[in-house]
Amino acid sequence: MPRYRLDIEYDGTGYAGWQRQDNHHSIQQALETAFKKFCGETVVVRGAGRTDAGVHALGQVGHVDLEKLWPDDTVRDAVNAYLLAAGERVAILAARKVEDGFDARFSAIKRHYIYRIICRRTPLVIERNRALWSSKSLDAAAMHEAAQCLVGRHDFTTFRSTNCQANSPVRNLDSLDVVTGATEGLIEIHASARSFLHNQIRSFAGTLRLVGAGKWSAADVAAALEAKDRKACGPVAAPEGLYFRAVDYPETDT
Amino acid sequence: MPRYRLDIEYDGTGYAGWQRQDNHHSIQQALETAFKKFCGETVVVRGAGRTDAGVHALGQVGHVDLEKLWPDDTVRDAVNAYLLAAGERVAILAARKVEDGFDARFSAIKRHYIYRIICRRTPLVIERNRALWSSKSLDAAAMHEAAQCLVGRHDFTTFRSTNCQANSPVRNLDSLDVVTGATEGLIEIHASARSFLHNQIRSFAGTLRLVGAGKWSAADVAAALEAKDRKACGPVAAPEGLYFRAVDYPETDT
Repeated sequence: MPRYRLDIEYDGTGYAGWQRQDNHHSIQQALETAFKKFCGETVVVRGAGRTDAGVHALGQVGHVDLEKLWPDDTVRDAVNAYLLAAGERVAILAARKVEDGFDARFSAIKRHYIYRIICRRTPLVIERNRALWSSKSLDAAAMHEAAQCLVGRHDFTTFRSTNCQANSPVRNLDSLDVVTGATEGLIEIHASARSFLHNQIRSFAGTLRLVGAGKWSAADVAAALEAKDRKACGPVAAPEGLYFRAVDYPETDT
Repeated sequence: MPRYRLDIEYDGTGYAGWQRQDNHHSIQQALETAFKKFCGETVVVRGAGRTDAGVHALGQVGHVDLEKLWPDDTVRDAVNAYLLAAGERVAILAARKVEDGFDARFSAIKRHYIYRIICRRTPLVIERNRALWSSKSLDAAAMHEAAQCLVGRHDFTTFRSTNCQANSPVRNLDSLDVVTGATEGLIEIHASARSFLHNQIRSFAGTLRLVGAGKWSAADVAAALEAKDRKACGPVAAPEGLYFRAVDYPETDT
């Protein structure tokens, strides 16, 4: 069966998250329903990451096996037409026939996320649900400095959900950069790693926000990491600021 | 009665436009309802421009008269709190006590609009309802060049709605610039004038889109202007691409 890699964008607002669930509308279900309309097949779309409810994607990657060989652009355009007609806020940026060995989740060697915060007095309107609103300004430089103690190989027990199903709390965080964005008041947290724990980036964002507000020091963040205790984490930041930006694969495997 | 200038942002999606209407929810009504909750008064908020259904604002300006003198920030924050609680996608960026002679509409000396088009194969998702989608690429340089024949003082009969209520179709267009945006595929049309006719910018955008797609030449645009005939206009571009960006007032009058 031909396997296709799918690069996927979605606005996670109103969805129950990536993963198919009973009685809740998910991104995965939206895609699988559109594929069913396109080719009549009941397919499973596997994703590189299971984003939570309200989390967005600029470059989620999935794979799907189809019975029949279709031109790449036909897969993309036809499935997009069904998604659009159904009012889904999900679309395929690119579809590409890949080797059978390609697995969106298990072949991934790096995942990239962005967490967006907009600092301004007035509640967000144009950007509502698409960034975290901070009514107070935050010190991005202090956040960046404090973030650096999290980079590297650590036990991230403090920064993962108590529901996290990963066997180990140890992960290698490649980078965690806090930068000011192109527009006034915008702060972006860029996180890259082979894999992340459940709620890890939102836990980072909520903790770094305390630093940006002057409530925590960099030493407090280091101490929270060292505590290896979920209770030492800052408040988990809301899902609407988080974007699954991209996934890297070995060159031979894309 | 103290008069306040209001700088207003809104996401026009789902609203019937700026102006209060029976049986349809408008931006003006959302604001007036929030003021009523704030100070108990039935007020009228006058706007600098009556945007159509689905059109957004980054800097609409309004004015309102209140019975009582309030601190500027109290007006902004309290009304915003009521707007947010009501789920309105409208917010006040700034409120400022002004001279009684200030009139958001009649004191304005220049209005600025942006029309956003995103060119890409895949339907818009994150940007849905916030830009016009063009599935084909457009030649922004050709659009800009063609736009220049519209700048200056002209009879814009071709480019105004047949429902336009202005006495004269003659307007002085200060500038009409077509630029590529910060992100790939983004084209922005920037328009500035003391005042615009009904649907004038959306008529420009729809016509310039034909130029960008190679269907019309700059000479065709000049001929359409010269025709002074609504039927010579290109298809009016959809409202979701249009943003009321800012309004200028005399320095002594803000």
